[in-house]
Amino acid sequence: MNKKIRQYGIIIGSIPTGKNNSITDVEGVKVGHTTLDDGKIKTGVTAIIPHVGNIFKEKLIAASHVINGFGKSTGLIQIDELGTIETPIIMTNTLSVGTAHEALVRWMIENNDDIGDTTGTVNPIICECNDGTINDIRGLHVEKNHIYEAIKNADIKFQEGNVGAGTGMMCYGLKGGIGSSSRIIELANNTYTVGVLVLSNFGSLEDFVLNGDHIGKRIFNDIEGTKRMEDKGSIIFIVATDIPLSSRQLKRIIKRTYPGISRTGSYTGNGSGEVVIGFSTANKINHYEEQDRINIDIINENKMNDIFKGVVEATEEAILNSLVCSNGTVDRKGNKVHSLKEFI
Amino acid sequence: MNKKIRQYGIIIGSIPTGKNNSITDVEGVKVGHTTLDDGKIKTGVTAIIPHVGNIFKEKLIAASHVINGFGKSTGLIQIDELGTIETPIIMTNTLSVGTAHEALVRWMIENNDDIGDTTGTVNPIICECNDGTINDIRGLHVEKNHIYEAIKNADIKFQEGNVGAGTGMMCYGLKGGIGSSSRIIELANNTYTVGVLVLSNFGSLEDFVLNGDHIGKRIFNDIEGTKRMEDKGSIIFIVATDIPLSSRQLKRIIKRTYPGISRTGSYTGNGSGEVVIGFSTANKINHYEEQDRINIDIINENKMNDIFKGVVEATEEAILNSLVCSNGTVDRKGNKVHSLKEFI
Amino acid sequence: MNKKIRQYGIIIGSIPTGKNNSITDVEGVKVGHTTLDDGKIKTGVTAIIPHVGNIFKEKLIAASHVINGFGKSTGLIQIDELGTIETPIIMTNTLSVGTAHEALVRWMIENNDDIGDTTGTVNPIICECNDGTINDIRGLHVEKNHIYEAIKNADIKFQEGNVGAGTGMMCYGLKGGIGSSSRIIELANNTYTVGVLVLSNFGSLEDFVLNGDHIGKRIFNDIEGTKRMEDKGSIIFIVATDIPLSSRQLKRIIKRTYPGISRTGSYTGNGSGEVVIGFSTANKINHYEEQDRINIDIINENKMNDIFKGVVEATEEAILNSLVCSNGTVDRKGNKVHSLKEFI
Amino acid sequence: MNKKIRQYGIIIGSIPTGKNNSITDVEGVKVGHTTLDDGKIKTGVTAIIPHVGNIFKEKLIAASHVINGFGKSTGLIQIDELGTIETPIIMTNTLSVGTAHEALVRWMIENNDDIGDTTGTVNPIICECNDGTINDIRGLHVEKNHIYEAIKNADIKFQEGNVGAGTGMMCYGLKGGIGSSSRIIELANNTYTVGVLVLSNFGSLEDFVLNGDHIGKRIFNDIEGTKRMEDKGSIIFIVATDIPLSSRQLKRIIKRTYPGISRTGSYTGNGSGEVVIGFSTANKINHYEEQDRINIDIINENKMNDIFKGVVEATEEAILNSLVCSNGTVDRKGNKVHSLKEFI
Repeated sequence: MNKKIRQYGIIIGSIPTGKNNSITDVEGVKVGHTTLDDGKIKTGVTAIIPHVGNIFKEKLIAASHVINGFGKSTGLIQIDELGTIETPIIMTNTLSVGTAHEALVRWMIENNDDIGDTTGTVNPIICECNDGTINDIRGLHVEKNHIYEAIKNADIKFQEGNVGAGTGMMCYGLKGGIGSSSRIIELANNTYTVGVLVLSNFGSLEDFVLNGDHIGKRIFNDIEGTKRMEDKGSIIFIVATDIPLSSRQLKRIIKRTYPGISRTGSYTGNGSGEVVIGFSTANKINHYEEQDRINIDIINENKMNDIFKGVVEATEEAILNSLVCSNGTVDRKGNKVHSLKEFI
Repeated sequence: MNKKIRQYGIIIGSIPTGKNNSITDVEGVKVGHTTLDDGKIKTGVTAIIPHVGNIFKEKLIAASHVINGFGKSTGLIQIDELGTIETPIIMTNTLSVGTAHEALVRWMIENNDDIGDTTGTVNPIICECNDGTINDIRGLHVEKNHIYEAIKNADIKFQEGNVGAGTGMMCYGLKGGIGSSSRIIELANNTYTVGVLVLSNFGSLEDFVLNGDHIGKRIFNDIEGTKRMEDKGSIIFIVATDIPLSSRQLKRIIKRTYPGISRTGSYTGNGSGEVVIGFSTANKINHYEEQDRINIDIINENKMNDIFKGVVEATEEAILNSLVCSNGTVDRKGNKVHSLKEFI
Repeated sequence: MNKKIRQYGIIIGSIPTGKNNSITDVEGVKVGHTTLDDGKIKTGVTAIIPHVGNIFKEKLIAASHVINGFGKSTGLIQIDELGTIETPIIMTNTLSVGTAHEALVRWMIENNDDIGDTTGTVNPIICECNDGTINDIRGLHVEKNHIYEAIKNADIKFQEGNVGAGTGMMCYGLKGGIGSSSRIIELANNTYTVGVLVLSNFGSLEDFVLNGDHIGKRIFNDIEGTKRMEDKGSIIFIVATDIPLSSRQLKRIIKRTYPGISRTGSYTGNGSGEVVIGFSTANKINHYEEQDRINIDIINENKMNDIFKGVVEATEEAILNSLVCSNGTVDRKGNKVHSLKEFI
Repeated sequence: MNKKIRQYGIIIGSIPTGKNNSITDVEGVKVGHTTLDDGKIKTGVTAIIPHVGNIFKEKLIAASHVINGFGKSTGLIQIDELGTIETPIIMTNTLSVGTAHEALVRWMIENNDDIGDTTGTVNPIICECNDGTINDIRGLHVEKNHIYEAIKNADIKFQEGNVGAGTGMMCYGLKGGIGSSSRIIELANNTYTVGVLVLSNFGSLEDFVLNGDHIGKRIFNDIEGTKRMEDKGSIIFIVATDIPLSSRQLKRIIKRTYPGISRTGSYTGNGSGEVVIGFSTANKINHYEEQDRINIDIINENKMNDIFKGVVEATEEAILNSLVCSNGTVDRKGNKVHSLKEFI
């Protein structure tokens, strides 16, 4: 595995991380990749499994938030209405959203005889960024089995950087992709975990700030022949936690990814689709609930600030991990795409 | 008290009403009026008290919804963010919102030594419609003590029609104002109540439909010299219930006021500010909560349909009650404003 | 072609219809179907073409609105952010959204060399309802070529009822599907057209109201062995117009589909995904615009009411057309599904 | 006048400022204050005049955005619905919102004979922060004439720091208040101005970052006896520009105040009401418009990035100006409140 940013001695924020400094520090969460890396084909699929059980039968409370809606992620309407998720979350490139959607539907109905027969349908969550600078995105190289494989590969340990959906992504003009980080939230009576995973594909090199250091400008000057690029592309944020939350509370929490991305220097450009999906593993919502009333725990609203801080820090660090865990490559026109690790 | 629409033998929908067919059938809810009716001064204040305790110290889960935002109600931003209310709800005419706001702030700080001193401030909820056709609205005749008086007058029994904030309102070209209705929701394990109160001030006479009967067109032809009027003005809906709900669920429920208003014939015109505030008395949120976690009940989402139906029916009936409980009057230019009861 | 509701002598509202009483009365709009009707396979695809040119290069101002978000339509995030559409709109069954999405992506990149190469990607709009009561939805019978075919078939004249995406839909316990209607809006200086197309798949038979007549209850009693069904399913509304509008104005207008659906009796149930997409053909937004400023016309906000009324009437009538143009069939369990035309 | 941050040699960002580095660099915009500073009474009023004409008769295209809705600002519902403002914007302390609302209504009706008589009512925009740490906010010391005076005082030149509504505000544990900054946006064919004014009252000293320098931690350690404080309080952002924009575009632009506040170190705490109001002076919307169609210019969406950057920079700098232009004071319990200028 590639070294994460902490292994370079760079510590983001002040709150301690979870055991693996990863979204999978939230118990039950797993992440799997399928990586396609063959010449101009540099793309893939990443799957986030929200809990170990049957996610359709035992839904999780969830929320979505759109920072900038120049994006094509699916499933958000229903998350907003019902406040739950009922499938794994699949990430891939923008033009393969349909393929991933169909594959996830197939996977869900194969694993649930009732969907579309004795009960309703299912709401697939597909998130995307445009990897077209590096990857031959018009080639539509992602296939159904790649989604299945990513789900099957899901584990607590997973690679970051240019793997899975991150294979062809660029971030701040450098190689981006998958990154993750976590924070331990100590409240008076309990200890919780919040984890963030990003698919990073945004930003302009000159704007890049590494833990307060405007390193992007220096790198820009160091790299011969660099062209000035606009802040476009996108970023997907997945926020997982074991804190008991209503979907309203979760929405408030996941909005704090915005200060997180801001700390890395971006002004969140016009063409950047920035979408956040959050879920809490603390309450499970039974698809076949019979009782009129459901009893749930939620957090005391006055205790939000520590959670907010945790999300900001984990978001910043996840973005940095997506950069520093990536290896340099060449884009589909043969231009070098550098890795951040060349410069620190 | 004026006769309500059921006392004319007109039954709206199929779900049984609560004991008083009123928002105050939800235990703890009270309503009070101050009526100003003196020549061209025809306006007033209506206060809804959400529960019998200290609403600032024990907040209720709440939601707001804007059908058409051509309106000036205050307090909605914070309801959306925090999902709670912490004051009585005050209704008055549009230009007196500021006066009512200041008065409610004064009433709250007089009753809570901590506000603005040892704890934060308070979020006053003021709702309004424009009664300027009948009332000398530019005269700003509502004063601080009128708000205090309405709060003090609050009771389970209260008048409907042209009283309180409804004194100068017009609805479908007839005299409108305050109306209320309720429904009993029988779920498998429990019996609940949902109540609606409206401040009606919208609609064009020709569009008015009474329980499916296009009576508005007939009345329009009957009234000599009637001028065609556009659908403008506004309507405020207050939805109260004892069903345990998250604010997300409550938002879904209060959106069903829209079919309710539609059943009375309106197409919800451009100039009509249609604002809904809902609250549930089932869970109380302690301002000084110390625990990290709060345990609440919410409703099983699959049981929503009966609640939706109840809100639609109670909304339609509340609007009809606002009409039929009102007495005819004259507007500030001396034109007759008829009561619906002249025609049924 | 099946007879529309007007041909039964039933006139909805008071505003005159366009020439064909169809969404295609808006100049440039075309509709095409692919119908799959073979035993338990009763599903299909409907394509709406917003204008005759290249919709990616010349985008239209658009808006979306979610009445009830229990749905899986795609593309809404970007419509909300950018206020434009850049693809045809594809309708199909819920579990085939992914297939339709991939097919529309393929069609778009085949017709636009620049997408994903020299310019960005594309935002496919796929709308859906669950036809699983009639159709073997788990069979995923919609294929890529069916989307291509629906686009190719698009014409000003098109069938309504159980065709295209409407093949397997049910509405108010009867056979539903595709329906359309239009209205002519006369403003002081100009004459405009607004057209609505629905994919109807919602409602409970007992609630159905036909132009104010509670016919649903009677039909329910007439049909031997009818089971009471909850209001679920969904409805998609497409609103097209040649009125010059900002996306904000368009959003206000398309919200008035809600009174339209309400007039047919529905209380808009929990499980019903109600999604509206609207577009105006009046201003074209050049993908490769070079100028800093774009000059557009918008409507005078004070003239909105006639447009609102037109949308309400066209929506009600489009739903009725979707019912009355449909032929009776059997569902996948062999139960008879009646057509409204049997009862009027 | 107090020195602004640039006069200390600290340059925020790379885009040039307008002539006065102020929101009033946008032609027609004026700002006025009423300052109450007498013992424990430290509060006031700030008025922003959007253009030199009659703002009710000639409305401006506007947008609002709520970053965190723990706030009590009024008027946002109608801005969202109609996309315009029609009054000056008044800022004051949280508990004086009602007083300011009534005063602004009085001022508007005195200046417009038609309001509430021959035309509709008016939508007052009141923004607020809680100055209760320094000011005797429960005393409700703001009176009607203070609002009138602030409007009358409005000028292109105005003071920043602890004046007007900023008199009693605290920001990052230091003295905050009013601050402003502007940027010149050079597009291909035109030169535009965007200006930001803030009322700052948020943040925790330890989090404060000055142009990338984590100075807050150092100041915290330097000030004997400093108590750790949570990030609460609020901030109001007013964004003015002469760029021609639709309200949708304006909403996108004003959302970029969030990276601006993030750059100063805040994670935007639970108790902080962060509200943004934006307006463009480029198109005037006639209240008595007679034509069906209005012709307006909007910006080419592809040119957004430079505007976004300008807003981020001007927001960061306006916050810094609110700090550095403020003089130290004592809070109502006698504790010293330092000024940033003591530390740079």
